[in-house]
Amino acid sequence: MTTLYLEDFSAGQTFRTGRQRIEKERIKSFAAEFDPQPFHLDEVAARDSIFGALAASGWHTAAFTMRLLVASELKPAGGLIGLGFDELRWPRATRPGDELRVECEVLEVRPSKSRPDQGLVKVKMTTLNQNNEPVQISVCNMIVQRRPK
Amino acid sequence: MTTLYLEDFSAGQTFRTGRQRIEKERIKSFAAEFDPQPFHLDEVAARDSIFGALAASGWHTAAFTMRLLVASELKPAGGLIGLGFDELRWPRATRPGDELRVECEVLEVRPSKSRPDQGLVKVKMTTLNQNNEPVQISVCNMIVQRRPK
Repeated sequence: MTTLYLEDFSAGQTFRTGRQRIEKERIKSFAAEFDPQPFHLDEVAARDSIFGALAASGWHTAAFTMRLLVASELKPAGGLIGLGFDELRWPRATRPGDELRVECEVLEVRPSKSRPDQGLVKVKMTTLNQNNEPVQISVCNMIVQRRPK
Repeated sequence: MTTLYLEDFSAGQTFRTGRQRIEKERIKSFAAEFDPQPFHLDEVAARDSIFGALAASGWHTAAFTMRLLVASELKPAGGLIGLGFDELRWPRATRPGDELRVECEVLEVRPSKSRPDQGLVKVKMTTLNQNNEPVQISVCNMIVQRRPK
């Protein structure tokens, strides 16, 4: 796969990741460590919650999204490094057994004024389940190196 | 600890979490599963990266922040449930051995128009290291239940 420099990005470009299944036992063990709330840990307790059934922690969906991205063709020079997000939301819960994938669209490419060797690429990243329903929508500002002269 | 209903929140309120240490081996194993890039996995490779030394994945910092919040006095009715974030950024890397804690400030409380039993509480959440330097800054919209009549 090709390393992408700032000059290789342009608004409108799209990238897709592969697809991977999120397992029930990992949903529970991730939650036990990082987000130990009943609706992420136990099927019965989840029934009486706002989620109606066992749901992955949003942070598990976010980390899983990152795993898909790192394995994808989106290979910016210097690594896949997010300065931060303008937006991050979970319009729908991730459920045990869901198969997730990510679609990315470049919104904006901007050279840095203070750092002549790098720039920012703003990307909309949508994580979809097997029914093509979005479980996570984010807008990320990635730091990308410029092509060496 | 008291369960907090929408009516118990007001702009300007603050909440603090306890403090917990993030371990080097967990930084590496988290990255191996979710963010397998050299600067999160290996001290030597990290030296030549933008981070200059081993750094936790931003998603590890985010999940660790959630763990601190779940264990804190911030106990909204229905659970600690984020609809999403207006902002999420990592102004500084989390390093092995850092001791993290979170400071929260309520920015806005808004009853839902479509769902009379709930509302949204907008909270600024700042994750700080042992030198009181922010490693994560976020603005979250939490779903909170109203007090039953």
